[in-house]
Amino acid sequence: MARIITISREFGSGGRELGKRLADELGFAYYDREIVTAIAEKTKIDEDLVEHTLETGPRTMVPLTFGHTFDYIPEFPSESKRILGDQYDVIKSMAERGDAVFIGRHADVILESYKPLKIFVYAELLAKIERCRERAPEDEHLSDRELARKIRQVDKGRSASHVTVSDLAWGDKVGYDLMVNTTEMDLKVLAKALAEYARHFFESQGK
Amino acid sequence: MARIITISREFGSGGRELGKRLADELGFAYYDREIVTAIAEKTKIDEDLVEHTLETGPRTMVPLTFGHTFDYIPEFPSESKRILGDQYDVIKSMAERGDAVFIGRHADVILESYKPLKIFVYAELLAKIERCRERAPEDEHLSDRELARKIRQVDKGRSASHVTVSDLAWGDKVGYDLMVNTTEMDLKVLAKALAEYARHFFESQGK
Repeated sequence: MARIITISREFGSGGRELGKRLADELGFAYYDREIVTAIAEKTKIDEDLVEHTLETGPRTMVPLTFGHTFDYIPEFPSESKRILGDQYDVIKSMAERGDAVFIGRHADVILESYKPLKIFVYAELLAKIERCRERAPEDEHLSDRELARKIRQVDKGRSASHVTVSDLAWGDKVGYDLMVNTTEMDLKVLAKALAEYARHFFESQGK
Repeated sequence: MARIITISREFGSGGRELGKRLADELGFAYYDREIVTAIAEKTKIDEDLVEHTLETGPRTMVPLTFGHTFDYIPEFPSESKRILGDQYDVIKSMAERGDAVFIGRHADVILESYKPLKIFVYAELLAKIERCRERAPEDEHLSDRELARKIRQVDKGRSASHVTVSDLAWGDKVGYDLMVNTTEMDLKVLAKALAEYARHFFESQGK
């Protein structure tokens, strides 16, 4: 059975980069945006709507108000259902291909039978704001307060979406094997440390 | 500057054993009950009262009702003050002696200037009940519900005590570098994995 690592992450915590580096350290496949693309191809639904549905869940198609922009994405119950159903198939077929790191998209719940190493990545708010500034030039015009609001809003969506697949709250420590604080941490070093941790974790499962 | 690891832990999560094994893996000193003994010697106050004050804080000298036994420990404000003051001195002088693992007793807060690796150890309730049964023959007569109550009560004390030294809640992930779930995990394997993690962590600090 494949060795699977799932990364759930607060927006701006660096979880995506950490997951990519971890996959490279271990020689594992890495699935992130690829999941969205595969679902969009399968369902013939626009990638942005797929991404939004996965991030916020079918019942939370809320207005998006980041900074000075305003977008409204209406509900599409039948599309939502197809997206969420195909998400299971897509993620499961990816896991069948072998060892992999999955970023978000409920892989921690969907791949439970693999006994994955479930990691939750978080950081202090100010560290997340700083990381957002460094990584997302499109948010350049946002004030710290607006960025903080965006972070809260994205995480609120992830939290709402998580409710649709699990009884445990998103970010509730009981749902994860390891919670990692990236505040002030070098992600390169963290990835090496987590790779060692993962090797021991899987060895103890006889993998 | 010494490499310091602090272990905060839910009652029954195996944090103490994990910390001991981690100290052995790394060749670090290990301070647990030793902290209580040193404070008792310094203050000339009974070890049990020292332990209780450290576990529940000075303002929470609550009746202890575990199972069918009932104990009441009255408040001793002046003793409390001496115990909590000496706790700082004792823990700091232990840290000055070199690399070490500290179990509980607010070492994570007291030794903040060492930039310690702060670990919080937790587990699912049923796993904690099972561990309590294995490790504490004196609780043999307690039902699962009574054990669950004891776990909650001890952790409530730790939580109340933490408030006296930190603005962050006990168990709030922001206060720790790493949160480790011991449910279904072999503590020997976990200790090895955490030792590797710690080596990388301290290397990144140039230690």
